[in-house]
Amino acid sequence: MDYIFSDKVSGMKPSAIREIFKSLTDKSIISFAAGNPSPLSFPVEQMHAVADRIFAEEAASAFQYGITEGYPRLREQIAHRLKTKFGIGTDNDETIITTGGQQGIDLTAKVLCNEGDTVICENPSFIGALNAFRSYNTELVGVDLEPDGMSIESLENALKTHPRTKLIYVIPTFQNPAGITTSYAKRKAILELAEKYGVIILEDNPYGELRFAGEDVPTIKSLDKNGTVVYCSSFSKIMSAGMRVGFLCGPKEIIQKVVVVKQVNDVHTNQFFQMLASHFIEEYGLDGHIKKICELYRHKCSLMLSELDKNLAGKAVFTRPEGGLFIWLTVKGGDGDDIARRAIANKVAVVTGSSFNPVQGGHSDSVRLNYSTPSDEQIVEGVKRLSQIF
Amino acid sequence: MDYIFSDKVSGMKPSAIREIFKSLTDKSIISFAAGNPSPLSFPVEQMHAVADRIFAEEAASAFQYGITEGYPRLREQIAHRLKTKFGIGTDNDETIITTGGQQGIDLTAKVLCNEGDTVICENPSFIGALNAFRSYNTELVGVDLEPDGMSIESLENALKTHPRTKLIYVIPTFQNPAGITTSYAKRKAILELAEKYGVIILEDNPYGELRFAGEDVPTIKSLDKNGTVVYCSSFSKIMSAGMRVGFLCGPKEIIQKVVVVKQVNDVHTNQFFQMLASHFIEEYGLDGHIKKICELYRHKCSLMLSELDKNLAGKAVFTRPEGGLFIWLTVKGGDGDDIARRAIANKVAVVTGSSFNPVQGGHSDSVRLNYSTPSDEQIVEGVKRLSQIF
Repeated sequence: MDYIFSDKVSGMKPSAIREIFKSLTDKSIISFAAGNPSPLSFPVEQMHAVADRIFAEEAASAFQYGITEGYPRLREQIAHRLKTKFGIGTDNDETIITTGGQQGIDLTAKVLCNEGDTVICENPSFIGALNAFRSYNTELVGVDLEPDGMSIESLENALKTHPRTKLIYVIPTFQNPAGITTSYAKRKAILELAEKYGVIILEDNPYGELRFAGEDVPTIKSLDKNGTVVYCSSFSKIMSAGMRVGFLCGPKEIIQKVVVVKQVNDVHTNQFFQMLASHFIEEYGLDGHIKKICELYRHKCSLMLSELDKNLAGKAVFTRPEGGLFIWLTVKGGDGDDIARRAIANKVAVVTGSSFNPVQGGHSDSVRLNYSTPSDEQIVEGVKRLSQIF
Repeated sequence: MDYIFSDKVSGMKPSAIREIFKSLTDKSIISFAAGNPSPLSFPVEQMHAVADRIFAEEAASAFQYGITEGYPRLREQIAHRLKTKFGIGTDNDETIITTGGQQGIDLTAKVLCNEGDTVICENPSFIGALNAFRSYNTELVGVDLEPDGMSIESLENALKTHPRTKLIYVIPTFQNPAGITTSYAKRKAILELAEKYGVIILEDNPYGELRFAGEDVPTIKSLDKNGTVVYCSSFSKIMSAGMRVGFLCGPKEIIQKVVVVKQVNDVHTNQFFQMLASHFIEEYGLDGHIKKICELYRHKCSLMLSELDKNLAGKAVFTRPEGGLFIWLTVKGGDGDDIARRAIANKVAVVTGSSFNPVQGGHSDSVRLNYSTPSDEQIVEGVKRLSQIF
């Protein structure tokens, strides 16, 4: 039989990153290509203790269907923490549990975007989000990232020239892939422009709590008084990625539509792990555990930076992140695709910058390096291998 | 801010069933409205033993990102069981793990259907699937169910008059809501028509293993030699609904597109419970546990039938299922909406047949009763309450 696929997905291919993952079954390759949290960051012992209690005392509800909005106590805990710790959420906002942050992005696009509508995003940006937008046949428009965030002039120009813009997608803190944190001034400017043009902002903040240096910058959502921002985050980088528990906080009207499409997408998120996350917060809190993860990543990041300084100074420039998972390495006039190819031939995997282009097929002179997944020994050896290709 | 939603979701509302669920916080109401497995059907003790081992020995992979296709060993186990036990799957078929059967339905629709395309389904049919199809702005065409399955004449007529048909959605075994099992002859006829018109069949079979009387009828997928059928099922009714683990088995080309959209939908299904299901199968097998569930439902079904016989003979007719979760009760010339309304006023919840209409707002003279969730006492008392409204 000849299969005919829908227009929205017929051109879609597995992401470059995903294909790299598959090549990583070769154990001789050191991977700086992942976006994975360190396995050392999972609070296994505490999760096990909480799980035992759920098995013993709450199995009947943990293994039964739950409500689409999510486990009620967990929603309350998240809303409370967002409000008290980060000033996020007004009386008109609601919180919904999603199957990882990725589902929050996917379903927000589904409820807001018709085919042919425009989504404005940072250039470069997170490939998982870009592909989610593509899967609804939207037009992606990239706005170049400067060291303090999107070019505001280019953003306004994009809004002016694309009247069908429905969404501005941004990762303001420890951006993936570029590691950039958008300044406070630019956050305000992005919000003002969104309000002026009547466009929703989807603020994706999976890394925001992983700060190991510098000062917090308020989220765009915390500045939002008029219901312009949908805020997306998850437990993937602060507890476990494999459990797929994330959340959205946004205007009631939008969240209620997300509930309707989530119901037909997966009914609800894994009930056991919603309860586990909730009981974990109740019993241990999140802050202490997150602090430990930050210490771990501070160490790994500074190790990778000092190895890069030693081995690649003068050959490439690279960001010096204050948090998150990634270093962005640029060779002026270079070719990221070529660097990534030669790197893998030398048994170290990095991701070419061009994978993160909103408009596919473009050029990039950069590659993305991840320091959270490899061991210390792998960081040292991997940077050595990388330097050998220059 | 005024929110403008995408055309595909702007008209969608939370499902009637979901709203009934919410009303069920009133503990004085006996619910025959759910589609939930019995809490007695969860193999809690064995799941706990397996979970302990994962926490102790495999936490690093259970809490990390996994691959989109699913935990490799579980995919093999499912493919093997489908092939050896049910004759399902050819060399050109692949299996993918989904976040419940619901996600399998949603993503199959996403990869195959453009807005305005037609999905043909049984009338009545499963509301979660109908709403998933609606959420991609497809046109639903219902084909009336006869006691042995879809009217084949009406199906061919629908195919002839709807040239944009992309999908025929059927639940051939213990259909939800009507409890009907499609005959072998009609299964073959549906497959032949799908091939003749070049349309994919989505065969949804979440209840097929819950047979407590009569003889198995081969699945449509087991008859499929030409890659016409995508088969969807899940662990929801045979292990746990709350864990959200389902699967699709279908032609490679289609499954590979499903992988691409699943990747941007939720990256992968909860890793821990994929491993748990896999280890459970390895250690305990599924057949013995499923047999116990069938015994439980045989008892509950026959209790509800005997109470209906006692209390409602002559006032209503009802199906006598050989498996599954539902009894379909019809009052010739009656009004299901009215019955459901009067039932809830008398503290017993049932679902009106009109919720299951592919074309919303139609009339139905039936209601759906569930016997898996209520206790024996609730079945006796609930049928009494139901009989009082006639």
